Amino acid sequence: MNFSKRITSMQESPIRKLVPFAQGAKAQGKKVYHLNIGQPDIETPASFMESIKSFDEKVLAYSLSQGIPELIDAIIKYYKKYDMEFEQDEILITNGGSEALLFSIIAVADAGDEVLVPEPFYTNYNGFSSAVDVKVAPITCNAEEGFHLPSKKTIEESINPKTRAIVLSNPGNPTGVVYTKEEIEMLAELAKEYNLFIIADEVYREFVYDGLPYTSFGNVKGIEDRVIIVDSVSKRYSACGARIGSIATKNKDLIKQILKLCQGRLCVPTLEQIGSVELYKTPEDYFKSVNEEYEKRRNIVFEGLNEIPGVLCKKPTGAFYVVAKLPVDDAEKFTIWMLKDFDIDGETVMVAPAEGFYATPGLGRDEVRIAYILNENDLKKAMNILKQAVASYPNRK
Amino acid sequence: MNFSKRITSMQESPIRKLVPFAQGAKAQGKKVYHLNIGQPDIETPASFMESIKSFDEKVLAYSLSQGIPELIDAIIKYYKKYDMEFEQDEILITNGGSEALLFSIIAVADAGDEVLVPEPFYTNYNGFSSAVDVKVAPITCNAEEGFHLPSKKTIEESINPKTRAIVLSNPGNPTGVVYTKEEIEMLAELAKEYNLFIIADEVYREFVYDGLPYTSFGNVKGIEDRVIIVDSVSKRYSACGARIGSIATKNKDLIKQILKLCQGRLCVPTLEQIGSVELYKTPEDYFKSVNEEYEKRRNIVFEGLNEIPGVLCKKPTGAFYVVAKLPVDDAEKFTIWMLKDFDIDGETVMVAPAEGFYATPGLGRDEVRIAYILNENDLKKAMNILKQAVASYPNRK
Repeated sequence: MNFSKRITSMQESPIRKLVPFAQGAKAQGKKVYHLNIGQPDIETPASFMESIKSFDEKVLAYSLSQGIPELIDAIIKYYKKYDMEFEQDEILITNGGSEALLFSIIAVADAGDEVLVPEPFYTNYNGFSSAVDVKVAPITCNAEEGFHLPSKKTIEESINPKTRAIVLSNPGNPTGVVYTKEEIEMLAELAKEYNLFIIADEVYREFVYDGLPYTSFGNVKGIEDRVIIVDSVSKRYSACGARIGSIATKNKDLIKQILKLCQGRLCVPTLEQIGSVELYKTPEDYFKSVNEEYEKRRNIVFEGLNEIPGVLCKKPTGAFYVVAKLPVDDAEKFTIWMLKDFDIDGETVMVAPAEGFYATPGLGRDEVRIAYILNENDLKKAMNILKQAVASYPNRK
Repeated sequence: MNFSKRITSMQESPIRKLVPFAQGAKAQGKKVYHLNIGQPDIETPASFMESIKSFDEKVLAYSLSQGIPELIDAIIKYYKKYDMEFEQDEILITNGGSEALLFSIIAVADAGDEVLVPEPFYTNYNGFSSAVDVKVAPITCNAEEGFHLPSKKTIEESINPKTRAIVLSNPGNPTGVVYTKEEIEMLAELAKEYNLFIIADEVYREFVYDGLPYTSFGNVKGIEDRVIIVDSVSKRYSACGARIGSIATKNKDLIKQILKLCQGRLCVPTLEQIGSVELYKTPEDYFKSVNEEYEKRRNIVFEGLNEIPGVLCKKPTGAFYVVAKLPVDDAEKFTIWMLKDFDIDGETVMVAPAEGFYATPGLGRDEVRIAYILNENDLKKAMNILKQAVASYPNRK
């Protein structure tokens, strides 16, 4: 039996494909520090489960395809704090940020069309795009520049008549970059000049460090009808398993189009929507304490990386990731080697090789993504193990 | 701003587009009996919420992309009762039957490919297909034959080199047809001869009346590698708002391909999976009592329809729907007229015009789908109102 070309050409998750090696390490009795996945250890606010537990309808019925009005209202209130004004018919609740991305891509691009994406990127941008025959045209960014964007002129070289949108995460996964106001405005200009949509994945909006300012595409004037903001409770409230995301856009016609896709899948689970209403009411000081925790961890990882000879890494300022260039021949081989052949007192580290975050062949081969989602102590141990692993690795550069 | 051709050409839900008229009727103070939607009134087994309430992890983390092993095990046990044998790596948990359908279509068909679908069909088959540029080639069935399939030869006329799969629901939504063993075997033959997949939507498997036998594609020998069974807890356990579905296939390579899509959307909500484990353990007598209730309702609706002069309707034997030909000029106009201009003592009825369930233009214009999801008393009242409405309708045929 033959499968479709689009599914067979879809890349396997570069992170998940190494899972068997981690399982092998554990089977050997090793402790593995997972720096490879973006699953935060922060507790989910208790209000989430409390409100779900109070659900007492006898029939768990379909809810509205666009999402329950209470959750849309809660998200409207949330955006107001950031000076973004949305109405009920400008927001759709989705099955995680993932569905928000997939639906947005289907709605703005046909088979054969292209979307511009700064690389390294969240791999699923490429996965969803290729599943629906949309090509990712990468805007290459590099470790030397801290993964900030190249010039407008350079980006323009990747635009052609098939280009339909710019897709990007800010703060960035996997790089931890926070784009400057000037970068955001430059992309806005490009979108206007070339008539592009901007699919702005801002799920890490609160995770910005060093007191840096943050510019959302929702705050840029004059591009309201071309901006699609993708959000999620997953990282914001450490509720990854809830799978509640959203699409927000001032383009009401676009909402009507995407609503057809929402109607096709009927609705998003009722219970998680009820729980997420409470998440969006979480007091502001929650972010403050979570942020302090992540900033502390970011510092441990950044300092740890700087202590490793031959590592190249600019200080990341957002999300909870960093991409670093290691002095190794091949980061995937290095990662497998750490799991199979290396340990310090029975402990080792798993990182995410970064090659899979690039669309341009060959790029990122000596880079890894590190997610700082472990507590201070574990993170210090993990960074020390990584340092010693690099020193011991037989194929050091 | 231009949207993609695939999204703009996607049909709006023919059921949901009449919702404003129902809201209008209610604003006028009318009571509306909803025979238009497939939302059962049966209580969700209490075990679902009980198990969710006992969830006590501090972090609601991502779960496995393929689904939690406990739920896959519960589904394996469920299929065993029907003499279907599946292993852990032959089942994927999905966001409702909807996602199972979408992922299956993407996996077997490329843009420009076709799928054969008996019409009238569940409209989302068309919706999902067109969203990913797959064309629905209808196999026309008709009310006179109780919506049973045409001959093998007739179906063969719709097959061409672009045909990749047969997609169908059995028991049928919207028709209530239960295909015979001979029909299932004929489709299996076609699938073998023309190298097609069969995407078998069997979410109404238990809803078969009059003691009729039921043949699942999971029980047909010799086509195991081409059968994809789509299932869901929505109707089976009256848990539509849970959005838990599944894909089951003996084709392990296909599972590996679809798993890439599952990894892209990370996971299905954890809580509903935990609840659904309990649903799948519901004792058999639950189905017996639910079935008796639906059979009683089917009889009320079928007898009610037969009392209306000019109605054509063969007795449906499955699911909880029936498509009937009414002596009206246009079923959509008639439905709107019932909501706007008709009532009996302040009460009226909403049905689903069937034209949207057909791909062939013009078919089904005088047909409606009735879902028998109301209690006996309400259903009797509703059928009486419908009878009087047909008699009073100014554009009777």
